[in-house]
Amino acid sequence: MNDKLNELKKLTTEIYDLRMCNALLEWDQQVNMPAAGSAARAAQMSLLSRSAHELATSDRMGQLLEDLKPLYVELPPDSDDYCLLRNVYRDYERERKVPVEYVSEFTQTTGEAFAAWDRAKAENDFASFKPLLGKIFDMRRQYAGFFAPYDHIYDPLLDDFEPGMKTADVLAVFKTLRDEQVKLLHDIGVRPQVDDSCLNCHCGDEGQWALCREAVKLIGYDLNRGRIDKAEHPFTTNFCRDDVRITTHIYEDNVMSAVFSSLHEGGHAIYEQGVAKELDRIPIGTGASLAIHESQSRLWENLVGRSLEFLGCFYPRIQQQFPRRFGSVPLNDFYRAVNRVEPSLIRVEADEATYNLHIMLRMELEIAMLEQKITVDDLPEIWREKMHEYLGVTPMNDTQGVLQDVHWAGGMIGYFPTYALGNLISAQVWEKAAEDLPELNAQIARGELTPLREWLTEKLYRHGAKYYPSELVRMITGGGIDPRPYLNYLNRKYRAIYA
Amino acid sequence: MNDKLNELKKLTTEIYDLRMCNALLEWDQQVNMPAAGSAARAAQMSLLSRSAHELATSDRMGQLLEDLKPLYVELPPDSDDYCLLRNVYRDYERERKVPVEYVSEFTQTTGEAFAAWDRAKAENDFASFKPLLGKIFDMRRQYAGFFAPYDHIYDPLLDDFEPGMKTADVLAVFKTLRDEQVKLLHDIGVRPQVDDSCLNCHCGDEGQWALCREAVKLIGYDLNRGRIDKAEHPFTTNFCRDDVRITTHIYEDNVMSAVFSSLHEGGHAIYEQGVAKELDRIPIGTGASLAIHESQSRLWENLVGRSLEFLGCFYPRIQQQFPRRFGSVPLNDFYRAVNRVEPSLIRVEADEATYNLHIMLRMELEIAMLEQKITVDDLPEIWREKMHEYLGVTPMNDTQGVLQDVHWAGGMIGYFPTYALGNLISAQVWEKAAEDLPELNAQIARGELTPLREWLTEKLYRHGAKYYPSELVRMITGGGIDPRPYLNYLNRKYRAIYA
Repeated sequence: MNDKLNELKKLTTEIYDLRMCNALLEWDQQVNMPAAGSAARAAQMSLLSRSAHELATSDRMGQLLEDLKPLYVELPPDSDDYCLLRNVYRDYERERKVPVEYVSEFTQTTGEAFAAWDRAKAENDFASFKPLLGKIFDMRRQYAGFFAPYDHIYDPLLDDFEPGMKTADVLAVFKTLRDEQVKLLHDIGVRPQVDDSCLNCHCGDEGQWALCREAVKLIGYDLNRGRIDKAEHPFTTNFCRDDVRITTHIYEDNVMSAVFSSLHEGGHAIYEQGVAKELDRIPIGTGASLAIHESQSRLWENLVGRSLEFLGCFYPRIQQQFPRRFGSVPLNDFYRAVNRVEPSLIRVEADEATYNLHIMLRMELEIAMLEQKITVDDLPEIWREKMHEYLGVTPMNDTQGVLQDVHWAGGMIGYFPTYALGNLISAQVWEKAAEDLPELNAQIARGELTPLREWLTEKLYRHGAKYYPSELVRMITGGGIDPRPYLNYLNRKYRAIYA
Repeated sequence: MNDKLNELKKLTTEIYDLRMCNALLEWDQQVNMPAAGSAARAAQMSLLSRSAHELATSDRMGQLLEDLKPLYVELPPDSDDYCLLRNVYRDYERERKVPVEYVSEFTQTTGEAFAAWDRAKAENDFASFKPLLGKIFDMRRQYAGFFAPYDHIYDPLLDDFEPGMKTADVLAVFKTLRDEQVKLLHDIGVRPQVDDSCLNCHCGDEGQWALCREAVKLIGYDLNRGRIDKAEHPFTTNFCRDDVRITTHIYEDNVMSAVFSSLHEGGHAIYEQGVAKELDRIPIGTGASLAIHESQSRLWENLVGRSLEFLGCFYPRIQQQFPRRFGSVPLNDFYRAVNRVEPSLIRVEADEATYNLHIMLRMELEIAMLEQKITVDDLPEIWREKMHEYLGVTPMNDTQGVLQDVHWAGGMIGYFPTYALGNLISAQVWEKAAEDLPELNAQIARGELTPLREWLTEKLYRHGAKYYPSELVRMITGGGIDPRPYLNYLNRKYRAIYA
């Protein structure tokens, strides 16, 4: 039986490594590749991902999993081996349910849709994108069908990104969240706006670059096991736990964009760097889910990075780097500026107090589409209505509205809620950390981020994907996903800023 | 039959793409990867190369090749399809002759030998490296045995790098070469040495970097289909004909090292960029052999780059970049300085007039080892003797002697002659180019490199690996590999400089 288990581990490592090779090809595409190389690169990436899929669904894999069933039922449920097997059983069964022809047609469709979306967004031409978008929703409905019966048609899609998560639970949490966030926004709206004009200044590339490096080093991103590069869109990727890379994008007229985005990616990265060595290069040797990952990027970006304590320690370095810009701006003004709340049209530019509302809007539309309560023709109008209802702003065109995100074109339906869930979990984890580390705020103010990082590593990072997201949340907080801590955090912080 | 041919093309493209993925992993390892990532990277590279090997020797491949035999014998011998099939038959038969266990043991052995060599070289400790080096030569003798019968035990090894090349032919050519190069060196040795002190000055990284870019752009390396990075050891790699990358290493106290090395790698790169589009991503869509490749790197580095004509055009840019260093150094002094001849111990630092002698020494030792006329114990002493005989210098220790090159540790026996053959071919090709382009020297002096590059593309680059090296040489020059043109070039150039 141990031979079989070792063979399975070897096989899963091969699959993992193939996927990590692909991750490197993608990193290179975004960081280094001359544009002329893109056709060959697409073919190479598709080859590697097909190879990984073939191995993962191979008869050899099926036989090994069959043979290992007697062992599986006897293993302790918190052992690495049990969790690995659980993960592989799950993925194998899920992948086998989806016909190869479907995968290939879906890949083809999203490839075309990406190009169509890109053009449609640039030209504010939703009509030209509509047929492909309709097809993608149809195909995702078909996909859900492979997993029938289900409680909710959205469940199988959500489950791809958040193993074990149920739509009903997410909707219940979001209900509370929406009402309270809309209320908070309304209360802020009647107060005088925060002045953030100090941020609208030209800051050189090199100085920003230095600040980004300092910021991620400060929170404990290990550059000996990673690197930072520039890319059009910031992202984090890893090829093993000892090679976890982040990218950033520097805007010369917006100094804090790159710094906060580096803290965000740095948060993702220290999670991956903190996975236990024993789990490296097997399927459970990576972050547990998108929401759990996002909880860590948001924790380091927002709960740490945008706090008065952290800025008390880091802002002097910004002033030192750009003395003419910030030398005479007091810390408190700067803190208020980087925490300005302003309902806006674009999700990726949204602040903490409005971000989740963008997410809920998208999830509601996705569900309505899947349930066929609306059609693709209705999307632009409902988008505008909901934006006005939740955020009080209305897009002038579809480029600023329904066309703004790449996710639907990429077929990633069920992805959006993970962003908001990440926010909620970040606050839940934070509350627990603050309980266990009574000096937390004082430590942050002194630039001592090690105790927090070590606490997170012990409670969360080292486990990788051994546990499902809800199990992890329960292990850390004793309960389920709960919007209360995040709402408390938002209310406390923003009512003070807008007092 | 056409279906079978298309299936074969698809399969060879997959194999090619897998190898190119591996090339990217290796490029990244040398350019970007944090050292901590090396263990996972080695495993990932070994996985991809195993996958490629499995596909290349698969029963599916065997069956396709069998089925295609009737077509093969009917195709015109200069058609792309014929040449592709010939290449694939050849590789398939060669790879099938080598047992999988041998490949795996050899990979393991060279892996260990590389580490042992690295340490032995640093510590001048040949004794510790000897057992593994002995094993590598034993294993290469065993490897040659898989291809018995052969005319010469060195033939199967040479054939890995130079398809179709025979040891007897190489030895005949080298005989003439050695005698005449030793004589030239002797004649130069009695003349006053050239003063190259102008090169020993500090030149900043940024200025050198700019010159490297200018130099490769000038010879026609297309940066829209490539890029230059810094690496410990300069190299060229490609992932398709539209993504061909070079690296360079800048030494602040030796301004011309990076520039000439960039011209060298740039030569390799424009060869790959010039392969016909129809051949992209199939096995014949790359350079024909190591010697043919080296002929092009050496042609652009030496016959172009170190010529008075090219420097007449490029030296002003160097002066402009470093006015304090070179502003008052006349062109002719600079030309003589970068063409100084000095017998030295280290191959990679050798000048044009001595380089081939380093190569011949190595090839003679390799053959003597394979023929068991000497043992690994004899290597250091024979190395010293031959260095004294050919170059008049004697290494003080093994680090400067038998331990200096990585090739043997990597198992690459049969590789060295390709460097010298490259030099010879470069001059043969050059003679033909000069016949066809009567304005060649005047064009170079004006910085017009396009006519030469286009001529080379037409005669050589576009063919990729359709033809064997000797076929290409015959197509271009009408004859076989001939040392005369290179000797004429050396004698003319260096007897003038040392007049």
